[in-house]
Amino acid sequence: MAYEFRLTRRVEFADTDMAGIVHFSNFFRYMDATEHAFLRSLGFSVVTTQVDPPVGWPRVHAECDYRYPLLFEDLVEIHLLVIEKRSKSLGYEFRFRKLNSTPIVEAARGRMTVVCVTHQRGGRMSAATIPRTMAERIEVAPKEVLG
Amino acid sequence: MAYEFRLTRRVEFADTDMAGIVHFSNFFRYMDATEHAFLRSLGFSVVTTQVDPPVGWPRVHAECDYRYPLLFEDLVEIHLLVIEKRSKSLGYEFRFRKLNSTPIVEAARGRMTVVCVTHQRGGRMSAATIPRTMAERIEVAPKEVLG
Amino acid sequence: MAYEFRLTRRVEFADTDMAGIVHFSNFFRYMDATEHAFLRSLGFSVVTTQVDPPVGWPRVHAECDYRYPLLFEDLVEIHLLVIEKRSKSLGYEFRFRKLNSTPIVEAARGRMTVVCVTHQRGGRMSAATIPRTMAERIEVAPKEVLG
Amino acid sequence: MAYEFRLTRRVEFADTDMAGIVHFSNFFRYMDATEHAFLRSLGFSVVTTQVDPPVGWPRVHAECDYRYPLLFEDLVEIHLLVIEKRSKSLGYEFRFRKLNSTPIVEAARGRMTVVCVTHQRGGRMSAATIPRTMAERIEVAPKEVLG
Repeated sequence: MAYEFRLTRRVEFADTDMAGIVHFSNFFRYMDATEHAFLRSLGFSVVTTQVDPPVGWPRVHAECDYRYPLLFEDLVEIHLLVIEKRSKSLGYEFRFRKLNSTPIVEAARGRMTVVCVTHQRGGRMSAATIPRTMAERIEVAPKEVLG
Repeated sequence: MAYEFRLTRRVEFADTDMAGIVHFSNFFRYMDATEHAFLRSLGFSVVTTQVDPPVGWPRVHAECDYRYPLLFEDLVEIHLLVIEKRSKSLGYEFRFRKLNSTPIVEAARGRMTVVCVTHQRGGRMSAATIPRTMAERIEVAPKEVLG
Repeated sequence: MAYEFRLTRRVEFADTDMAGIVHFSNFFRYMDATEHAFLRSLGFSVVTTQVDPPVGWPRVHAECDYRYPLLFEDLVEIHLLVIEKRSKSLGYEFRFRKLNSTPIVEAARGRMTVVCVTHQRGGRMSAATIPRTMAERIEVAPKEVLG
Repeated sequence: MAYEFRLTRRVEFADTDMAGIVHFSNFFRYMDATEHAFLRSLGFSVVTTQVDPPVGWPRVHAECDYRYPLLFEDLVEIHLLVIEKRSKSLGYEFRFRKLNSTPIVEAARGRMTVVCVTHQRGGRMSAATIPRTMAERIEVAPKEVLG
């Protein structure tokens, strides 16, 4: 059972804007990439063709609170925590830590809710129960970790 | 006094992802562009060198609820509403309407809080009172509009 | 018969990087959007389901020469010219003009080659003759225009 | 003396488009990131404040030939080779190899020319000789490597 995952990445030049900092929209791309790496660490892709029928994970909510800017070449840890697990949806929290600052600061904290869906003929999606092989491996982070 | 602004844009190919829909992070770029067009409509740029000293508007919070996907070449109206006005910050709401659907649906609704800052020597920012020439032109949307 | 198209757009904040200018990769997004608007002006989408069988237009070559930087809120005209027409491919040139500069300068010039393909079962693509309804409406720009 | 660098990265979801492949503009972001990692491997940043006066590296030309699409979660090696070294500019080649395909294929090949500049008062740039500490560490790849 897994409830967390840590991804470290270096801020790229193309992620910055003319204010000299990572554009706020790119924090959502970082969250996205971290969730996908979390699923890969469990043996799944977010394009979940490893289950039958395949499922997808559209986002229904995303948010972020920004505290410190991220700069070019900053080394950032994105710490994913599972904060909610329902039969058809998952909630994640993401803590952005700036590893190259002294002291290490939390630059931002985000949240995302994703829904498990199957695709109907014609492309329409409908909410579906999270496949058991996935649900068995994911749990909500304990309170002492969530702090 | 202004409390709203509407921007219409067509979804571009590069905004979509392999799920065939606009990537959720791009809704924040659309919000960003709409806020900047709102400020331009009042005679200001978000890079606010029209006041002395110049001010900037870092985002401290952003969020979005997603209801319907946006597809390539969809015609989208982003309706900005001022929902909060404090001495040093502004809150915006953004309603994404899919103009080419029948009936027109609200595809998403987002919110953003921005803080007015001045830049100190050395690049550090500190919160500042919104310059009067700007504050005089911006007001919170009336309740009946916010619905 | 059409051989050119002009799209005007304002540089968005998210298109810039920490150097204060449009990131060079975004010129390719601007070209892309201009080509798609060109096809729409002819009654087609680049996701060409208006013909049977549907065709797609993968890029096989793209390039750009950069002369002047584009800045936030610059008003840019992207002038598309058809420079090559073969049975299964098209070549475009794109001239980026900075409309808000005095004098108006050409900020960049790009080129792109796209191939017409049909999709086989299983997702594989194979080059295909440009559908006649499209080929009939597109021609190479005359030499005096290409100058 | 260095003439090459290899960066391996996994294709992210947000890099794909509705055609299910990496959008062609993102190959330029990959090149950019690889060049920056190459410079870091030599002890420099592309925001070159390690020399006095600081220099920058605007792109004057970029191009790419596309052979095979890159897909979500593909593992891609971007192999940078120095192909030209002048007093005030550098030319790079980038070979994109899809490491998870059998056999490994070259998905794309790009080129980029960057110019060394110093910033004048007022933000204007002028071409400058590559600082000796940098020039001493960079050389053109031998012919047998360029093949």
